[in-house]
Amino acid sequence: EDDVYFSSYSHFGIHEEMLKDVVRTQSYMDFMYQNKDVFTDKIVLDVGCGTGILSMFAARAGAKTVLAVDQSEIIYQAMDISRANGFGDKIQLFKGRLEDVKLPVDKVDIIISEWMGYFLLFESMLDTVVWTRDRYLQPEGRVYPDVCSISLTATDDLELWKNHVTYWDDVYGFRMTCMKSLVVQEASVEVARADGIISDSCVVKEININKCSVSELDFSSDFTLCIRRTSSVTAIVGSFDAYFGHGEDHQIVLQTGPDQPSTHWKQTVFLLEPPIPVREGDNLKGNIVCQKNKKDPRSLVIQLTVGDQRRTYFMQ
Amino acid sequence: EDDVYFSSYSHFGIHEEMLKDVVRTQSYMDFMYQNKDVFTDKIVLDVGCGTGILSMFAARAGAKTVLAVDQSEIIYQAMDISRANGFGDKIQLFKGRLEDVKLPVDKVDIIISEWMGYFLLFESMLDTVVWTRDRYLQPEGRVYPDVCSISLTATDDLELWKNHVTYWDDVYGFRMTCMKSLVVQEASVEVARADGIISDSCVVKEININKCSVSELDFSSDFTLCIRRTSSVTAIVGSFDAYFGHGEDHQIVLQTGPDQPSTHWKQTVFLLEPPIPVREGDNLKGNIVCQKNKKDPRSLVIQLTVGDQRRTYFMQ
Repeated sequence: EDDVYFSSYSHFGIHEEMLKDVVRTQSYMDFMYQNKDVFTDKIVLDVGCGTGILSMFAARAGAKTVLAVDQSEIIYQAMDISRANGFGDKIQLFKGRLEDVKLPVDKVDIIISEWMGYFLLFESMLDTVVWTRDRYLQPEGRVYPDVCSISLTATDDLELWKNHVTYWDDVYGFRMTCMKSLVVQEASVEVARADGIISDSCVVKEININKCSVSELDFSSDFTLCIRRTSSVTAIVGSFDAYFGHGEDHQIVLQTGPDQPSTHWKQTVFLLEPPIPVREGDNLKGNIVCQKNKKDPRSLVIQLTVGDQRRTYFMQ
Repeated sequence: EDDVYFSSYSHFGIHEEMLKDVVRTQSYMDFMYQNKDVFTDKIVLDVGCGTGILSMFAARAGAKTVLAVDQSEIIYQAMDISRANGFGDKIQLFKGRLEDVKLPVDKVDIIISEWMGYFLLFESMLDTVVWTRDRYLQPEGRVYPDVCSISLTATDDLELWKNHVTYWDDVYGFRMTCMKSLVVQEASVEVARADGIISDSCVVKEININKCSVSELDFSSDFTLCIRRTSSVTAIVGSFDAYFGHGEDHQIVLQTGPDQPSTHWKQTVFLLEPPIPVREGDNLKGNIVCQKNKKDPRSLVIQLTVGDQRRTYFMQ
């Protein structure tokens, strides 16, 4: 007992947080339970299954077999949970990287995964989902969510802006003005108040998960925000939507915009310094370039041009 | 511009969060501004200076010279900030590990540092402070904070307990009972409600920062909690206090207990499973063994015995 050696173990709290994000988890549940015809007798592959909740939704929605893969220790709990809920051989669980595990089938009918990160692409597992799709999905197969979109909108929330910018003018009696530009360039993941939103929302990227390549996840897009209220834009707010059965009758949309119930993804805030004065009816034009940081592919470098202002933001 | 290579940079947001913890930052400020006789004409060493706020407090409190050391990129901002506030050569800043930098003096009169982690010792910088003290502090010198204590108390907060334990009985219609013990063994950093506290607070470890050795930071202690209300103890709540000028007239105490204004340290919650029934006036006895995880010295392994219940908790 004197020698305290413990091998690495998972942080189980993170799975609790994910499950408790009801908007997130219930979107998957609603789609599967409301579309049993899609899942009945199908072979389903769950990429990064965690506790196995999506696999159990799929099994209960009628899947013939669910293959669930996760590389973390949580897979042993998922095995226990699947057994405790009577799924027997219906759900088969595998520990390892998708690229390494040996699955008992060559092709699957459906891939499900909750791979989305902040601003959709930050630390996202999409690359693995794309690899898995290309390796395992049969030609008529489907990936869910099947379409994801990234949107931008404008806020005039002045408190938010003062909190991160003006703050540095007097910190316990000292000037720390040099911190402003450094803090501004770190895109901030936080809840953007719905009543601060002063423009419509503009989709800057739509990704068809059934077809996309990894290379197109680096993207550039022009955008126009139609301003609803004369004010000053203090920040651009980013969010994403994930569609299940996009454009179909029973489509379910998992939304993370500032006008929606909040999720653990919150929103992504790109502060403008200085704020940009706008008038009701203005079309505020801009451009976004979003790329993986080649030195750390899980992080993002985002160049945002709004009006005359151009700035590079980091998510790391 | 096509090649997006960016070298590692600091997360500046963390410094914003630390500065905005007013209880934390103002404790240092109050002690230094109210004890200028302690600092006047002294050579002060700031270990892990960040933005340099503590160094500026010390300089304004009358220090002759402040040496400020940090190994992260933030040191360049600290240099800029110090200059912008007119400290010139009074504050001298050095980038690097304390063990590596070459300081212009052999001994200093005072060491200041904000090294405290969750539950005081989790991911704490105290080892570096102790090394620095042994290498640089002159015999009559002082380290601030000079004394720190870790305390435990009992809560009967049933919502907190249900949130982490009962929750697993029915997760979207599935049983995940096996998750209970895993989640319970992860000591949880969260705000414990003041009105849930049903015992006095018992100090289980006091550390004299002027004298302590690194080895005594692994500790074992018996404790007794005097119960104020007949109920069931759902968790033991850990917190710490940091003293500046301990026992002196102008002592300042930075407190992080559940009955105090909250800080970014919140409290550390050790869930009991099952809860332990107690009666008003009971003396609930226990023992705590707190050790660094030898496989990861920044993480902690805490064995807690309360009544007949013994459990090992992890902070990682």
